[in-house]
Amino acid sequence: MLLSIDAMGGDSGAAAVLAGCAIARRRHPDLRFLLHGDEAALQPLLKHRRVLAQSCEIRHVPGIIAMSEKPSQAVRRGRNTSMWHAIEAVASGECRVAVSAGNTGALMAISMFRIGLIEGISRPAIAVLWPTKRGQSVVLDVGANAGCDAQQLVEFAVMGEAFARAIFGIERPTVGLLNIGEEEMKGIESVKRAGQILRASELPMEFCGFIEGNGIGEGAVDVVVTDGFTGNVALKTAEGTARLVIHYLRSALKRSLLGRLGGLLASGALKTLQRKLDPRTLNGGVFLGLNGVVVKSHGGADALGFASAIDLAIDMGSSDMMARILSDREGVRAVTGDGGPADQPDGSGTARAVVS
Amino acid sequence: MLLSIDAMGGDSGAAAVLAGCAIARRRHPDLRFLLHGDEAALQPLLKHRRVLAQSCEIRHVPGIIAMSEKPSQAVRRGRNTSMWHAIEAVASGECRVAVSAGNTGALMAISMFRIGLIEGISRPAIAVLWPTKRGQSVVLDVGANAGCDAQQLVEFAVMGEAFARAIFGIERPTVGLLNIGEEEMKGIESVKRAGQILRASELPMEFCGFIEGNGIGEGAVDVVVTDGFTGNVALKTAEGTARLVIHYLRSALKRSLLGRLGGLLASGALKTLQRKLDPRTLNGGVFLGLNGVVVKSHGGADALGFASAIDLAIDMGSSDMMARILSDREGVRAVTGDGGPADQPDGSGTARAVVS
Repeated sequence: MLLSIDAMGGDSGAAAVLAGCAIARRRHPDLRFLLHGDEAALQPLLKHRRVLAQSCEIRHVPGIIAMSEKPSQAVRRGRNTSMWHAIEAVASGECRVAVSAGNTGALMAISMFRIGLIEGISRPAIAVLWPTKRGQSVVLDVGANAGCDAQQLVEFAVMGEAFARAIFGIERPTVGLLNIGEEEMKGIESVKRAGQILRASELPMEFCGFIEGNGIGEGAVDVVVTDGFTGNVALKTAEGTARLVIHYLRSALKRSLLGRLGGLLASGALKTLQRKLDPRTLNGGVFLGLNGVVVKSHGGADALGFASAIDLAIDMGSSDMMARILSDREGVRAVTGDGGPADQPDGSGTARAVVS
Repeated sequence: MLLSIDAMGGDSGAAAVLAGCAIARRRHPDLRFLLHGDEAALQPLLKHRRVLAQSCEIRHVPGIIAMSEKPSQAVRRGRNTSMWHAIEAVASGECRVAVSAGNTGALMAISMFRIGLIEGISRPAIAVLWPTKRGQSVVLDVGANAGCDAQQLVEFAVMGEAFARAIFGIERPTVGLLNIGEEEMKGIESVKRAGQILRASELPMEFCGFIEGNGIGEGAVDVVVTDGFTGNVALKTAEGTARLVIHYLRSALKRSLLGRLGGLLASGALKTLQRKLDPRTLNGGVFLGLNGVVVKSHGGADALGFASAIDLAIDMGSSDMMARILSDREGVRAVTGDGGPADQPDGSGTARAVVS
């Protein structure tokens, strides 16, 4: 498999990206990389990585999209950048998958502009893997859109289900709509209506109705569907809470001699904990709904994080995910009588909602 | 201070409620209680609690509102219940504060119906105390309403600020709107518009703009304002995440002999952690916006939890919170040119959104 890599994206730039590619190459010896970026910066980094260098082709492009650049500016002025070229390789069909640790909003806007949406999907979504008591679940949308209607939530369910099948290898993933109660009458209109549509549809997914916020961490369903505003708040609230608990744990252990001693003895276990909670190992938001696969690695990801994002990209690129989304989308239309997307966004509206 | 107590509410019923009152009575010797409930059930429980019995007056009422009862039914048929009478004592002016561990939706619906909203407030909100790295913050609304507009978010900011002043004793609490980015252009329309109104207003609060989900646990602001849908999802996601981290911690410690030994030595510290995360000690959602104070204790609260809810009730009852909300509401009107609440809800619409 040939991956298109934005070699200059992310807070740590090319060094972290190439180190991540090297880890991924060791895991998957057949992997090949199309590295988009400044040749003068990339060549020296590849000198010490002989094995990796043999799997890479550098496509020189001088520009870089800044982490602070606005999505609309990136679309207008980003043509000569590593991110643009990385996406272009997917748009042209040269690669199936692109990976970037760069500016999320810009990546989404350029992807929308160059790769475009799957026919019948009106909005893209960003999906993440969420750690749960039972393993991992897919949660989407975590920030591609600021708000959305029932039809879009149903599309997210279809895309999330196809994604879960691709990466978890489950035949019929369970799908739930995030809500503020489990009864059918609870919640906001868009969520209630999406629930009705999904209950009435005969999609090859196991629709489990509504789940509440605490159900995400419990692993109540394989796929949690929500709008980009709620999903983003939930994701960041969970990150903040995990950090808060670790903070409490540290100060609780420091408070007594026994606690300090116990913490020392258990330090291996605590490291395991930290690894489980480390966003790097679960790294990679995935853009769903595009006519190609684009994986967003966390901007602050190190080599390990970038390698995790590549793992995701490989799983997605090797699956029939896109065909599945297309066929399920037909099943939804049969229920809703919807003739297609109401508004084909031009990229700018959506991009504005994307959070980095 | 005389507190109106729904003595029969909650999963554990009168036993937990009275045990909680006994703890509160030891903390505040001047406290007196009006206990609404079944005399035949309450008298035996008070027999062994001499000191508490001297501070209590029992008002016999036979009925109980079930935890599963729908809010609309509770309003229609709940007249002869302990919850109704507990609220009635506030509506009549006999008490300033009512505390109940019963059905949240029913409690809100009956409170709206009997106590009513403060003039100029269009919707009530449920506020909770959220543990943070810096102590505690107020978060509202966590589920009284399913959705809301900019004007209502501004009202929540006013109510939350007054509440934070009352319980934290801060002169100018910092207030933030929960959003998916800190820039002014990010997010949904209602949140953006509420931000504009709050920035333009000259309210005696420190408006800090937008905060993201991770900012809650960091204690970025004293008061976090959001709609009831997002707030409820965030609250329950945080609860689920805290439970997930503890779950990971337990299994990480079990995995090795050193871990088990360390966990044993640090068990005191781990108990401190659990206490910090224990919803019982931070127990009590507060209904804001009513012409009186109603505190909702968690349905599953034990004696300690109910005592925490009483602590909250005392802080709120002793403050000039209501006067503050009224005067700040005038300040908001001066900015928005709003003549008053657009729709005076009849209680049923709001009650439907309340989650228990």
